Amino acid sequence: MNSNLILDILGNETRRKILFELSDEPMYFNQLAKVIGIGQQSILRHMQALEEGGFIKTYEEKSNLGGPNRKYYCLSSSFSLIISMSQDSFSVTNNQIIEKSNFNSDNINNKKHLDKLFTNSKSIPKGSVKNELASVRKNLLSIENGISDLESRLNNLQTLKQTVLHRLHEIGKDNFGHLERKILYKAITSQSSMSISKLASALNENESQVKNAVSNLQNKLGKDIITKLFS
Amino acid sequence: MNSNLILDILGNETRRKILFELSDEPMYFNQLAKVIGIGQQSILRHMQALEEGGFIKTYEEKSNLGGPNRKYYCLSSSFSLIISMSQDSFSVTNNQIIEKSNFNSDNINNKKHLDKLFTNSKSIPKGSVKNELASVRKNLLSIENGISDLESRLNNLQTLKQTVLHRLHEIGKDNFGHLERKILYKAITSQSSMSISKLASALNENESQVKNAVSNLQNKLGKDIITKLFS
Repeated sequence: MNSNLILDILGNETRRKILFELSDEPMYFNQLAKVIGIGQQSILRHMQALEEGGFIKTYEEKSNLGGPNRKYYCLSSSFSLIISMSQDSFSVTNNQIIEKSNFNSDNINNKKHLDKLFTNSKSIPKGSVKNELASVRKNLLSIENGISDLESRLNNLQTLKQTVLHRLHEIGKDNFGHLERKILYKAITSQSSMSISKLASALNENESQVKNAVSNLQNKLGKDIITKLFS
Repeated sequence: MNSNLILDILGNETRRKILFELSDEPMYFNQLAKVIGIGQQSILRHMQALEEGGFIKTYEEKSNLGGPNRKYYCLSSSFSLIISMSQDSFSVTNNQIIEKSNFNSDNINNKKHLDKLFTNSKSIPKGSVKNELASVRKNLLSIENGISDLESRLNNLQTLKQTVLHRLHEIGKDNFGHLERKILYKAITSQSSMSISKLASALNENESQVKNAVSNLQNKLGKDIITKLFS
């Protein structure tokens, strides 16, 4: 799922509320409308937007009172979007939440326990509901602790990154012209080297001007660093 | 900065573009308008929203041509927002990016090097611009690797969490009534125990009905687990 779509869709409080409500369990329209508490027409429009965007989907379930089938809404996408902003940076990263089979037990001591929990899933004898719940709670708390820990380490790195970017922008401002430093920032923050034409289109600038600016950079910085940055 | 405000503001592509542009360096209005390339009135409205929300701020700089001062826009907030969604969860976490003085060197071997880089900051002799840039690039790449690594570990934990939540919702659906399981989910996913009245207001439900449901839960699960969950 595309980051722009996610941000466009989540930029509305009612849509976020709907997703929060459906995260606990699937609901049919009237249930949801009651909880959300705004006009039905308006909720319906938001549900359509969520469904078209692939955030939710519907399925039918037989009514146990012999009435018509009920249409349920449930969540249908998984992603983890990280938006970071600081004085010198703004980034949006979209990570697909990976499938269960791929994860490693990184930081969690109870993967074995979890596996056990979820292989003898489905039909547990009534008496052990209590134990299951206790173990779910224990697992969730330990996962939440792991998540908080990683998030705070991520924050530390974002802070470091901000410091380095700030330094980069100082150097750029003091030593290079506008287009030169635009090119430099792009080249330095890219993981791999870039051709002139790719660079020009990434910066939305004229190719021959970019070529000029790159040769200015070459004069100022020497050939070797430029060769490293541009292929 | 409040997560709802961040999502409301970032739910617009033009506003995101403006933030991307300003992350490289401050710009004055005409520069920005040229890059963004939509009507000036409409850009102005978005800039006002960004400024009122505290995302950007302005400062004046003397024109070196003797003309009137120029008003520059720059980024003025820092945060790291993580939005996670899976079949059984939807969460928005807002982490303030912490101040430089608080971070620890976790996962980064070159903190010392960074410190050196940024204490003899400001006035570097022209000749060493090249070395500074090389070191900025090296640092950025290593920070980016650290960030990717943490993000993928975070994803693993989100996947684990999804598995556990899914199990919780199965147990809830098979064994408890609607309000009972709502209460159970809230109690189990909270880090600390909750009073009945706090619970009722968190769930937006009637307090005496919540009290009833809690005593039903007590009958089904026994007093001890309930005492652990509710104070």
